[in-house]
Amino acid sequence: MADTWFNESLYPDWGQRFQTVRELARERSDFQDIVVFESTSHGRVLALDGVIQITERDEFVYQEMLAHVPLLTHPKAERVLIIGAGDGGVLKRVLQHNTVKQAVMVEIDGRVVELAKEHMPMIAGDAWHDPRADVIIGDGIDYVAKAAPSSFDVIIVDSTDPIGVGEVLFTDEFYRDCERILSDEGVIVNQCGVPFMQADELQETSARRAKFFPHVTAYVAAVPTYVGGFMTLGMAKKGKNPHQLDVEQIRQRAQKAGLLESCRYWTPEVHIGAFALPPYIAEHLPAVQG
Amino acid sequence: MADTWFNESLYPDWGQRFQTVRELARERSDFQDIVVFESTSHGRVLALDGVIQITERDEFVYQEMLAHVPLLTHPKAERVLIIGAGDGGVLKRVLQHNTVKQAVMVEIDGRVVELAKEHMPMIAGDAWHDPRADVIIGDGIDYVAKAAPSSFDVIIVDSTDPIGVGEVLFTDEFYRDCERILSDEGVIVNQCGVPFMQADELQETSARRAKFFPHVTAYVAAVPTYVGGFMTLGMAKKGKNPHQLDVEQIRQRAQKAGLLESCRYWTPEVHIGAFALPPYIAEHLPAVQG
Repeated sequence: MADTWFNESLYPDWGQRFQTVRELARERSDFQDIVVFESTSHGRVLALDGVIQITERDEFVYQEMLAHVPLLTHPKAERVLIIGAGDGGVLKRVLQHNTVKQAVMVEIDGRVVELAKEHMPMIAGDAWHDPRADVIIGDGIDYVAKAAPSSFDVIIVDSTDPIGVGEVLFTDEFYRDCERILSDEGVIVNQCGVPFMQADELQETSARRAKFFPHVTAYVAAVPTYVGGFMTLGMAKKGKNPHQLDVEQIRQRAQKAGLLESCRYWTPEVHIGAFALPPYIAEHLPAVQG
Repeated sequence: MADTWFNESLYPDWGQRFQTVRELARERSDFQDIVVFESTSHGRVLALDGVIQITERDEFVYQEMLAHVPLLTHPKAERVLIIGAGDGGVLKRVLQHNTVKQAVMVEIDGRVVELAKEHMPMIAGDAWHDPRADVIIGDGIDYVAKAAPSSFDVIIVDSTDPIGVGEVLFTDEFYRDCERILSDEGVIVNQCGVPFMQADELQETSARRAKFFPHVTAYVAAVPTYVGGFMTLGMAKKGKNPHQLDVEQIRQRAQKAGLLESCRYWTPEVHIGAFALPPYIAEHLPAVQG
């Protein structure tokens, strides 16, 4: 059999490639090109518009850090809004917190959800059927514009990069609405790319959120298939400064949520350590961080 | 002009590729295949036996973490032995510590040193001409076997992976000699690969060093072109437990060494945070860590 390779097209002149066993799906949805393939190195892989979104083997890194850090930064996260994350992996991690009462997930592209359910069922597990889950195929921008004030404790934005379908998730209007629908100690997190390659993404998002939130910061995760060193997850918060939390407080909250012992990347120490930003990343945040 | 790509061959079924502008050197030395090329994305790049060793754009991450962490873990690092690191980048970072009195570098492949001086002079800067530097083209194994007891405070092993020329740097004999030539609070650090892809490397090295050192641990760095998530740097220490150090002690030592403000990845907080290992990495260390 001839070698077949999937070359990621995120950057024109550098990137990763996967040897593929077989292609499981390739289609053009109303929003983007979707490819699911099986690789020898990373199991099943989902790519949108040529960019790797998730692989079976390393998804735990991104999902654990995207879900657990904001949920434990909020003193009592009961109502969580997830925008994007059509594969269901963030939903699964949010619902692992037995303190969560409601998780609304709004994904614009129903085909991503359907293809993930068909070809990557291990990512979401039973999350789709959890009575606390409300999965909406629709526009996240529209959803936050219409949601009631103070109706969520945490918002997790798991978007593609700010090009194409994800672009509207990086605007003033969107962040203004997010601030409005978050409760007093509300936390929003969104992926801000890999600053070694895409520093503008962190810089612009952080500056924009600083208009609406008193505390703007970021933390890092080393996701194997988001190549280029650390990816950053941008966090903005209302109420108290999130940097006041220490390892023991995080551990206690995690214990209460039933989370300890279940993770492969996240720990209370990794959680706190992830906010220690290398200067080459920190320089892209607003000068006065919260 | 047709596109030309350099495909890294470290793993057979997954890896990174660089668009190349031109090849600057390609030769077979007595020890390995050496390639230096210019890329559009990462500047100049050095590859040994098909594996990326260093790029102009991201070398600061690896070098800062490989040099500064052990030197500041030792209470008074004056005499430093570097094995490998033929490009001179570690030597440069070691000599940034104005507390260092002597830095001996032993590189087996003189052609790496010569090609780095010719094509990547920015990596080592003026380090080659520092009066405290002693650059030896020779066998590191042989050097540590013959060196006097307690003659170094820190040993930094910047080897290739434990295949080919680097293999002998991962043996019992080597670590026994290192223990012998280190002073009472001596520290040894060596690169242990990317555990997401090469977990055996960390596991075997750690188990081996635990035979000779009371404290065996590891810390992580997210090096953009060592793809696959965190790479681990294995540390072993004599004397006091390295985990007793806190951020303020590290900051004081760095200030004394004249190091603060000069780094792009390392900070006292990043230093301490780097020892917070995700469980998928920590599980490869010996059960009782020091």
